[in-house]
Amino acid sequence: MTWLDLPADHPFGLHNLPYGVFSTAGTEPRVGVRVGDHVLDVSEVARIGRDAVGVGDGPDLTAAWERPSLNPFLALGRDAWTTAREWLTAVLTDAVHEERTRPHLVPLADVTMHLPLEVADYVDFYASEHHASNVGRIFRPDSEPLTPNWKHLPIGYHGRSGTVVVSGSDVVRPTGQRKAPTDAAPTFGPSARLDIEAELGFVVGGSTARGDRVALEDADDHLFGVVLLNDWSARDLQAWEYVPLGPFLGKSFATSISPWVVTTDALRAARVPLPGQDPEPLPYLRGSDATADDPGTAWGLDVHVEVEWNGTVVSRPEYRDMYWSPAQMLAHLSVNGASVRPGDLFGSGTISGPGKDTRGSFLELSWSGREPVTLEDGSQRSFLEDGDTVVLRANAPGPDGSVIGFGECVGSILPAR
Amino acid sequence: MTWLDLPADHPFGLHNLPYGVFSTAGTEPRVGVRVGDHVLDVSEVARIGRDAVGVGDGPDLTAAWERPSLNPFLALGRDAWTTAREWLTAVLTDAVHEERTRPHLVPLADVTMHLPLEVADYVDFYASEHHASNVGRIFRPDSEPLTPNWKHLPIGYHGRSGTVVVSGSDVVRPTGQRKAPTDAAPTFGPSARLDIEAELGFVVGGSTARGDRVALEDADDHLFGVVLLNDWSARDLQAWEYVPLGPFLGKSFATSISPWVVTTDALRAARVPLPGQDPEPLPYLRGSDATADDPGTAWGLDVHVEVEWNGTVVSRPEYRDMYWSPAQMLAHLSVNGASVRPGDLFGSGTISGPGKDTRGSFLELSWSGREPVTLEDGSQRSFLEDGDTVVLRANAPGPDGSVIGFGECVGSILPAR
Repeated sequence: MTWLDLPADHPFGLHNLPYGVFSTAGTEPRVGVRVGDHVLDVSEVARIGRDAVGVGDGPDLTAAWERPSLNPFLALGRDAWTTAREWLTAVLTDAVHEERTRPHLVPLADVTMHLPLEVADYVDFYASEHHASNVGRIFRPDSEPLTPNWKHLPIGYHGRSGTVVVSGSDVVRPTGQRKAPTDAAPTFGPSARLDIEAELGFVVGGSTARGDRVALEDADDHLFGVVLLNDWSARDLQAWEYVPLGPFLGKSFATSISPWVVTTDALRAARVPLPGQDPEPLPYLRGSDATADDPGTAWGLDVHVEVEWNGTVVSRPEYRDMYWSPAQMLAHLSVNGASVRPGDLFGSGTISGPGKDTRGSFLELSWSGREPVTLEDGSQRSFLEDGDTVVLRANAPGPDGSVIGFGECVGSILPAR
Repeated sequence: MTWLDLPADHPFGLHNLPYGVFSTAGTEPRVGVRVGDHVLDVSEVARIGRDAVGVGDGPDLTAAWERPSLNPFLALGRDAWTTAREWLTAVLTDAVHEERTRPHLVPLADVTMHLPLEVADYVDFYASEHHASNVGRIFRPDSEPLTPNWKHLPIGYHGRSGTVVVSGSDVVRPTGQRKAPTDAAPTFGPSARLDIEAELGFVVGGSTARGDRVALEDADDHLFGVVLLNDWSARDLQAWEYVPLGPFLGKSFATSISPWVVTTDALRAARVPLPGQDPEPLPYLRGSDATADDPGTAWGLDVHVEVEWNGTVVSRPEYRDMYWSPAQMLAHLSVNGASVRPGDLFGSGTISGPGKDTRGSFLELSWSGREPVTLEDGSQRSFLEDGDTVVLRANAPGPDGSVIGFGECVGSILPAR
């Protein structure tokens, strides 16, 4: 199948081909594609020429890829992404290209990974019914767990683009105001309830004009790929500030994403029907009917996520449990005529399932501190301590029994300044 | 004083010198400075050379100004902004520079103005006690008008950077979900309660590292300038969506700003003490004591704003009535370690005063539709109709009895698509 020496079950085999931005010692950051345990320096390979691999006239991929972010490539749109994927597959499959391509395979150990995109607008959704219900029970114990709007629209809000960072970046414990219900006034200091949110992030490409909307059935044209996303959250700051205008400083200090953007093309075999929506959403959010063979336009994703806290796997959320689909989120985000740009990023919201072992935040896992988590070293945790490290990992089914890897999204906590 | 033929009371005299981005027929957008009824093509003038005007070694202003946004100039920081202002003042004052400078004064009628900055992160605050109280009474009639946190911190949230547009851009009526309390389920359609929010926007320059904060006393280093800002708001969409994560589609379709960024240097004489803060805020938000002669570090601004609806001035909000200061907003925004970047923009929130004739939104002016506004043509309005035009204008006291003009922020409503 390929001139590469890759085991068929490698999570970064030819079925995957995720995009990132890398550099080696003394070189500028540029786009690369992960192949096995190597990074393919694709702008160099693209110089081989498009005619050589028989895809004919196409976009100038060298120009798009010799850049320090994916944004120029994201701007090219769906047809160019498809062409690029076909071309890369041909280059890595046909032995005639081996000699010219092999020199551009860089061992992972020799590269530094960078933030893969220049984040334009960042939106965070709240698409897990289990998570929203748990948070409602914890934050608003005297009310219904879900607000009346929750099953009518995918609730979301804008976050801070400038503090989206790549996996491996440390997170300084945020400082701010917090006030327990029993306190007379707020106090100031480091967050004492620092948390994670295990999410998927969706990377948007192409663009629309202001005033237009992305119809649900056109969402695939703009959904370029998927990353792991950790929406670090200071629960004490958030609880005091969030009424009435929503989360702000409780979230804006850092959001980590994994360095490899797994394309939605690679995730075709992972599409599954949603768990079901009742009441039926309004027409602009209504996908075509899902069947056993076809998950419809409002597809979910069968992505298995793992949350590791200081070496102990504490949760295994399943993305297929999410209530709202990525296409529904994008259709909703733009239904008011808000334009989209290459580099827009939206998070799914915490991925939580029905069982305790599938909760995607420590707030839920420890039930706001009342049921601490025991790690393998015997220590107990409710929220993050200085020096703690969290790793998110994920994989999904690929075609023909293959596995699609997402890699890792890692972050460690530094003390407050 | 100057070789320019400018009346001393011109709102764009030498005391002002606001920055924008302009183009003329067949030329690329670049930075310009408004001088009277002309735009000075400053990157061309900067080629005259720094030595010629005696400011010695300085930043390369030509490189910063021959760009389609202010961001490269914003990145240079406070010292460069001061140098540039001194240099421009010298060039426009000393007759020795007239001959070389005059050819680069372009009549306003010949220019197209563009969005002056590439907006990095956009945050909107809620800093008027009168506005927050009015909205609380209208949206939450059974609760205290101000939430318990309101006088402890400047409440804010992130908005959509990609839909910040320059004055003159039309606004397509947004469509989405709305649900009246008496409706059984939400319906879909064009917003029926389309509103404005008259605000000032603060343009941030320089940058900080993630994990650091901008101390209140250092805020001046990052507060480059001020624009008029209209935070168009669909109240029906907002009311249905905003609990629990805040405004989203009710705001994200468009935010208009004026083309001229009035520098905080030009507004020195407009600094005034805040109306007073009780309870005293936490130390990180506490400015130095204001006196009769010195408004302290948490200064307010004596900016007079005017809201015109289809030719009728319907409100004259006074910015000096605002509860929280711009420096307090910036200190709060970054106290959790959120980094700031050149091109960050934050809005003050609607500017409303104690009287009905100083309310900065139509929601308040019409008291949610119960007290419609009568325009000069005899028509009545509660919210915006298709074809309506809103103009924001403002001015402030300058030094020596001069006036600092802000120009206009204009937008008209197009029918929903």
